[in-house]
Amino acid sequence: MTSVQMKKIQKWKKLGQETVFEKYGRKINKVVFELPDGKKADYYLKDEGDVAGILAITKNGKVILTEQYRPGPDKILMDLPGGFLDSGERPEVAAGREMLEETGYKGDLELVGHTIHCAYSTRKKYIFVARNCFKHASAKPEEGEIINVRLVSMGQLRERVRKGQMTDTDLVYLALDYLGIIK
Amino acid sequence: MTSVQMKKIQKWKKLGQETVFEKYGRKINKVVFELPDGKKADYYLKDEGDVAGILAITKNGKVILTEQYRPGPDKILMDLPGGFLDSGERPEVAAGREMLEETGYKGDLELVGHTIHCAYSTRKKYIFVARNCFKHASAKPEEGEIINVRLVSMGQLRERVRKGQMTDTDLVYLALDYLGIIK
Repeated sequence: MTSVQMKKIQKWKKLGQETVFEKYGRKINKVVFELPDGKKADYYLKDEGDVAGILAITKNGKVILTEQYRPGPDKILMDLPGGFLDSGERPEVAAGREMLEETGYKGDLELVGHTIHCAYSTRKKYIFVARNCFKHASAKPEEGEIINVRLVSMGQLRERVRKGQMTDTDLVYLALDYLGIIK
Repeated sequence: MTSVQMKKIQKWKKLGQETVFEKYGRKINKVVFELPDGKKADYYLKDEGDVAGILAITKNGKVILTEQYRPGPDKILMDLPGGFLDSGERPEVAAGREMLEETGYKGDLELVGHTIHCAYSTRKKYIFVARNCFKHASAKPEEGEIINVRLVSMGQLRERVRKGQMTDTDLVYLALDYLGIIK
């Protein structure tokens, strides 16, 4: 690894923080940093909870996706099952709970890893694979969640992620990489 | 594509919207929807501008990354060059401008596509590849941007994205897929 113009990159010093917006899942903190050159700068950062997504595969090799309306992009999308970690909840517990709630399926969960949502957000996004998934119960989506459970082939998922029309493009690729489906 | 329990998924009807927070790049809208069952529900959505990232490759086959402190995750990360589209700016113009500002390099830009940042954000993330990149000028980062330009091999990028320790994991994979580097 070479460097064109070598600077020493260092962490900024956090001088203070206050919450300037908090409503439902949205929280924004004003954070005052001292930059390496000694100047002070205010940043408005998203204080967002961690999430977990699951690439869930049935015993027949189908991938379990959730189809639902997403209000941010204003589109109906197929995505991985998943959702927020409840307060203090371990990622693998959240993953199993969300998969069961949204799809009714259970399976053997393995942690793949996590990625970073955004340079201005505290959120980590965990990704799991779940193998040998089987229908355990009826889906019990939360209030306001209207979800279609879709079973697609791995090839269909591979084509779909390539188009980027998912909110979890990062997590799908990480799981496909972990499984050796992309090389 | 088969369906386990077929529901008709439809778009929600937007009844109204007001901005409840706006400061620097952060804007949150309260949006009132009528859900398909006729109930009304308030959502607090992130109204966020679109961004563009670039997988930039030099004439010698090196990938140009930017190393900087990221305040959200509180980490020093290597990421793709890129940033916000200015108001009315076309994505390819923003991509070329951001690459030049952050790294001093120019190259032949091709649009790969875009993905969706989050189910509760309006943001699109565009991804470009830039081939035949060459040093054109000194980097001119914006106020507060302290950036090291790093040249890495494609194999090093491939290893790095697998670990998820980037804010643009989605964009890197989309570009590698477009280039046929992952199959």
